[in-house]
Amino acid sequence: MSRANDLKAWQQKAQAQTESVLEKLMPSEHTVPSTLHQAMRYVTLGGGKRLRPLLVLAASELGEADQTAVEYAMAAVEMIHVYSLVHDDMPAMDNDSLRRGKPTCHIQYNEATALLAGDALQTLAFDILSRPTGLPPSRQLNMIAALARAAGSLGMAGGQAIDLANVGKPMNQAGLEQMHSLKTGALIRAAVSLGAQACPDLGDDDLQRLDGYARKLGLAFQVMDDVLDCEADTATLGKTAGKDTDNNKPTYVKLMGLEPSRRYAEDLVAQAADLLAPLGEKARHLQALAEFVTARKH
Amino acid sequence: MSRANDLKAWQQKAQAQTESVLEKLMPSEHTVPSTLHQAMRYVTLGGGKRLRPLLVLAASELGEADQTAVEYAMAAVEMIHVYSLVHDDMPAMDNDSLRRGKPTCHIQYNEATALLAGDALQTLAFDILSRPTGLPPSRQLNMIAALARAAGSLGMAGGQAIDLANVGKPMNQAGLEQMHSLKTGALIRAAVSLGAQACPDLGDDDLQRLDGYARKLGLAFQVMDDVLDCEADTATLGKTAGKDTDNNKPTYVKLMGLEPSRRYAEDLVAQAADLLAPLGEKARHLQALAEFVTARKH
Repeated sequence: MSRANDLKAWQQKAQAQTESVLEKLMPSEHTVPSTLHQAMRYVTLGGGKRLRPLLVLAASELGEADQTAVEYAMAAVEMIHVYSLVHDDMPAMDNDSLRRGKPTCHIQYNEATALLAGDALQTLAFDILSRPTGLPPSRQLNMIAALARAAGSLGMAGGQAIDLANVGKPMNQAGLEQMHSLKTGALIRAAVSLGAQACPDLGDDDLQRLDGYARKLGLAFQVMDDVLDCEADTATLGKTAGKDTDNNKPTYVKLMGLEPSRRYAEDLVAQAADLLAPLGEKARHLQALAEFVTARKH
Repeated sequence: MSRANDLKAWQQKAQAQTESVLEKLMPSEHTVPSTLHQAMRYVTLGGGKRLRPLLVLAASELGEADQTAVEYAMAAVEMIHVYSLVHDDMPAMDNDSLRRGKPTCHIQYNEATALLAGDALQTLAFDILSRPTGLPPSRQLNMIAALARAAGSLGMAGGQAIDLANVGKPMNQAGLEQMHSLKTGALIRAAVSLGAQACPDLGDDDLQRLDGYARKLGLAFQVMDDVLDCEADTATLGKTAGKDTDNNKPTYVKLMGLEPSRRYAEDLVAQAADLLAPLGEKARHLQALAEFVTARKH
């Protein structure tokens, strides 16, 4: 099998594993309160690139991972990501009606259900990370701490607050990178960190190196998001295209232009790849995910 | 000092401790994003009966508690409680404008800020419980698990979903108790459990007995809430009075009548007190909190 085919097969297998793990860890749609559980499953299952769980899995390949802990971490980071999308799409925030090619949660159900489904997905993420695995409990506490700091007011939620506060205001590149390092970067870094922490044989040096990779990757991801939002049509994107421009939000494309933005993302991916080079073949799926970020069409 | 005065002094000291711990554990109002942190502090500080942190503290007096773990648990249960109030007050849910005698978060700030402040308070609760204490890490994981299960779709968030789904519908007493056991009971039980778990010398037998107490107390608390909502005026209550009747929600008062509801709450408190009797003087503050539930005016 060629390298490209091997990577594609790995990605598909990892996406299927993510789906299966999420399916298993969420209450069934018949469990009371059934509408809430249906909504949680509606937003979580059956879609998405699964970038964050794939980063968990790829990072866990660098050591002797505890597979239960890996699967729990894959589910937890995706649940945090999905909860943030559900709340972000609500009328009080971005007011969006399409996500992953489907009506958003508050459109499909109602606002109260979307609010509670997001809330309960966040709780479930921490519930899952507290369950017994083969890791030392102190390691599990570190993983919970890493996810909580990435998701909270000094991470993802804080980035969303900065984003909302700056609609229609001028923002320089430093401000934009600061915002995105919180809004999307923090959770991408947590995904890589959790995957590595699921390996008892990996230490602080490995975690540091991987964090350098994750920082570059997170930034590249956001720059490409702006590029794609500018270029793509709604059908390809699976969410409303051009909404950042419409919403008068600061973007890399507005700041740097379209082609320079794309080149910037490609540079960041190359830098991320360089950081992984000493790790050799074990890091090949992390390498592939970095390349995927600039190659993706949505 | 008389017994009543001793208990009153303990309660005031415990409320002051709660305030101080919350103050210390939340980012300052100058920390970026400052509006988000101001909103988190606005809803969390300077008010409330602090029943849940007081339950943590009173339960922790039954053993040799780790004081850091106790304070973290006090803060975490209150943050989960406050986040649920912030989201519950939003227009998509109860649409309330007054809470603890102040404008609700979405009135004082805006809906997006209320959404994110609630989200970030939930995250901070789990962040805090993951920090190092003198307890074994496995005990801390159990505490995180207990709080997450109490707060999630099979606990508090699930109870809110059932509540919303049943506005305007007939509900019998079993249905009402099921709803409240999730909506408010689960977090009250978690508060007692976390306080006890902060004592390495308490085992499963103690936890079982305390859980019996907490179940009765949680139910009594909700029955009295309905009684007070029916009786009190808005000024005494610090939140909009009579709203449950206006909202066409099922209540104990509607189901049983006002005086039978009050007697039912008093019976439950007496049963809760009986469960604690074998524990003697060490349980006196848990006893006092049970009596407080039926004696309170708001």
